[in-house]
Amino acid sequence: MVSTLEHPAPETATTVNEPLLTVEKHIIAHQTTIESWFRSEWRKTPAPFYASVDLRNSGYKIAPVDTNLFPAGFNNLNPDFEAICIQSLQLAVERMGRKIDRILLIPENHTRNLFYLENIGVIQSLITKAGFEVMLGSLIPELTEPLTISLTSGSTITLHPVIRNGNTLSINGFIPDMILLNNDLSGGRPPVLESLQQPIVPDLSLGWSTRLKSVHFRHYKEVAQEFSEQIGIDSWFIDPLFRNCGEIDFMKKESNQCLENNVNTLLVAIQKKYEEYGIHQKPYVVVKADAGTYGMGVMIAHSGVELLDLNRKERTRMSTTKEGQKVTKVIIQEGVYTNETWGADKTVAESVVYMIDKNVVGGFYRVHPNKGNNDNLNSPGMQFEPQSFEDCCVSPDKDQSPDTKLNRRYTYGVIARLANLAAAREFVTPHS
Amino acid sequence: MVSTLEHPAPETATTVNEPLLTVEKHIIAHQTTIESWFRSEWRKTPAPFYASVDLRNSGYKIAPVDTNLFPAGFNNLNPDFEAICIQSLQLAVERMGRKIDRILLIPENHTRNLFYLENIGVIQSLITKAGFEVMLGSLIPELTEPLTISLTSGSTITLHPVIRNGNTLSINGFIPDMILLNNDLSGGRPPVLESLQQPIVPDLSLGWSTRLKSVHFRHYKEVAQEFSEQIGIDSWFIDPLFRNCGEIDFMKKESNQCLENNVNTLLVAIQKKYEEYGIHQKPYVVVKADAGTYGMGVMIAHSGVELLDLNRKERTRMSTTKEGQKVTKVIIQEGVYTNETWGADKTVAESVVYMIDKNVVGGFYRVHPNKGNNDNLNSPGMQFEPQSFEDCCVSPDKDQSPDTKLNRRYTYGVIARLANLAAAREFVTPHS
Repeated sequence: MVSTLEHPAPETATTVNEPLLTVEKHIIAHQTTIESWFRSEWRKTPAPFYASVDLRNSGYKIAPVDTNLFPAGFNNLNPDFEAICIQSLQLAVERMGRKIDRILLIPENHTRNLFYLENIGVIQSLITKAGFEVMLGSLIPELTEPLTISLTSGSTITLHPVIRNGNTLSINGFIPDMILLNNDLSGGRPPVLESLQQPIVPDLSLGWSTRLKSVHFRHYKEVAQEFSEQIGIDSWFIDPLFRNCGEIDFMKKESNQCLENNVNTLLVAIQKKYEEYGIHQKPYVVVKADAGTYGMGVMIAHSGVELLDLNRKERTRMSTTKEGQKVTKVIIQEGVYTNETWGADKTVAESVVYMIDKNVVGGFYRVHPNKGNNDNLNSPGMQFEPQSFEDCCVSPDKDQSPDTKLNRRYTYGVIARLANLAAAREFVTPHS
Repeated sequence: MVSTLEHPAPETATTVNEPLLTVEKHIIAHQTTIESWFRSEWRKTPAPFYASVDLRNSGYKIAPVDTNLFPAGFNNLNPDFEAICIQSLQLAVERMGRKIDRILLIPENHTRNLFYLENIGVIQSLITKAGFEVMLGSLIPELTEPLTISLTSGSTITLHPVIRNGNTLSINGFIPDMILLNNDLSGGRPPVLESLQQPIVPDLSLGWSTRLKSVHFRHYKEVAQEFSEQIGIDSWFIDPLFRNCGEIDFMKKESNQCLENNVNTLLVAIQKKYEEYGIHQKPYVVVKADAGTYGMGVMIAHSGVELLDLNRKERTRMSTTKEGQKVTKVIIQEGVYTNETWGADKTVAESVVYMIDKNVVGGFYRVHPNKGNNDNLNSPGMQFEPQSFEDCCVSPDKDQSPDTKLNRRYTYGVIARLANLAAAREFVTPHS
């Protein structure tokens, strides 16, 4: 049984009256408008196959901080909502608009991360239960024969080397009708996947070797503005401010002048918003690699000068991301305090919402005992304890407070879907 | 907490080895083939908006006996699977292919059946939770102002008189984008609904004033044959044999000669099948109105002569169906023994499976303490105790016996979807 999650007001709650719960109140009150708006947006821009969105909730602000189009962590979802996942998977495949019976799932190459492989086991099982044949194809160059791995849950998965014949990808005797990536292509677009006759989802252009967070958040800003007009709120309540520089090199001190300036400009802008809404918190920013994931190359700063004062170790850490890719672009994003806590000892919690096609299918809290409310809870080696949502965020209850669990889940689902819509627009206009 | 349902072998189990569980075994083993086949069929013929299917399971045979395109009883489904219903409703509305924000739900006219009105309350709530505005429009001629009715569950529903302006239907100030019928039009096609600019689902032609069970079961026979070829079974295991007469008049004795002959022919055909599979049961048939529902005008017979020997009261009962419609056509269908029982006292149970669009969204058992295993469990005034399915029938587990609850539910979902597909074909080729 999942323990209860508490959602205290931020420390400054007694002096902050207006913005607190503004987002939730407006969202709960406008459900029909919101769902109608989403319906018309999804007709214009089809949703990604699947996605997960990291949210931070400071009480006065709820915002997405990362949108992952190759979501791991399906093993952290509540198994009670498996049927929702299965039904959504059927819908997502149906949208491919062609006969699909066999699916090749391509996971990440790291075979020692058992948490990640558990996720692959769950996705494979969901696809099977949805009525498709599914096999796992690996891009590991050294893999020459099937590799069966035992999972902690007791089941096994088998990775197969992929074979390319002309423009057809297969694994021994199994010719898939589509290829589903759960590999974010941080290392670049693999030649073996280029120009295949089989459709690949998500599209290769959405891998982290080409996708930029700043492009995503530019789309998100537009989405947030259009949405906020519908329900009559300042879009800042759901949209983290951000700035970015051109090419930078963390190893060269002079390169960081642009960063310092942008950090300072952003902090001033955040301070102005805090004053507008009477929020007595210290503004901070998060500097992270513009391309990349897994919380590497991430730092927080409360002033621009901190960027100039980095020591060699910190510079090195910021310079490289997953699979050793060099960081040459960063996004500087408004830090959103996480004022949600879990359990009696008030541990900081960050929520992650999962979607398949346009449907919210579940989520969980990352709970990290040793982190503060401005820390990044998705950092390397982080031992978070996932706490799955007990319900599947679909419908608010206007008779309940906007802050009840049910209504907060609906709000999370709305914000996550806004980020999902931004991701959908990225694909339609990739180079905005 | 729902009590356990037992599924004993039929009395003759010890001598019947082969056909017992044949259907389940083949269905569980062929899940991927089945789902692939359904996917391709739904691409050709879109599923009805919603439907419920009554199933009877004799152990050696599982067959649909009624397919309702205006399903009542949503209040009997397991509320744990509300999210599945909501998601499926969103999909069903999306398939309309136009902007739908406001839905007018038209219920049956009987305002004193609180069980039925509870169903309407649940459908209205599901539609609201799915993010649409929904109001109830009534076809009751005497209704001139809104009528609010308190439900036993504690909530209320309000029926509004419908207003027709040109070819637009509305209720005071509420112009719906679509009209959803939960009224089976037994009394005929209401002129107020003809030639509206708003789409009506299900189509008026699918009301019981025009729809014939014999047409449905003719389509079902084809569907069952195509399906059975896919998984290698005799389609008789899932398809009740049937015959029908032309015009008949129960009040005139001579009119029943055709009935008697057909009953006898059908009984011989059933006996032959029973012998082929070593089933030691007594064949029987069910005679029911070809157009109509609610279990009126239904009788069972073990010999053709019983049709000639009806007394006046029985003739009168068979002559009229819901809303006083005269029965002029009947379908004579193979009786399928219900060898499923509920609880310690082995009460006969009949399952009803609900679908929205092509998705199974739940079901329940009709449990009637005073009925036998060849009785019709949906008869007038029947006080059945609904026992909702504890799970939502989506995916089998090949590692479990075909007779476990999970796998049986999957089988039920498959058979119900076959009936749903037959209904879909009725609409595409209504006069086959």
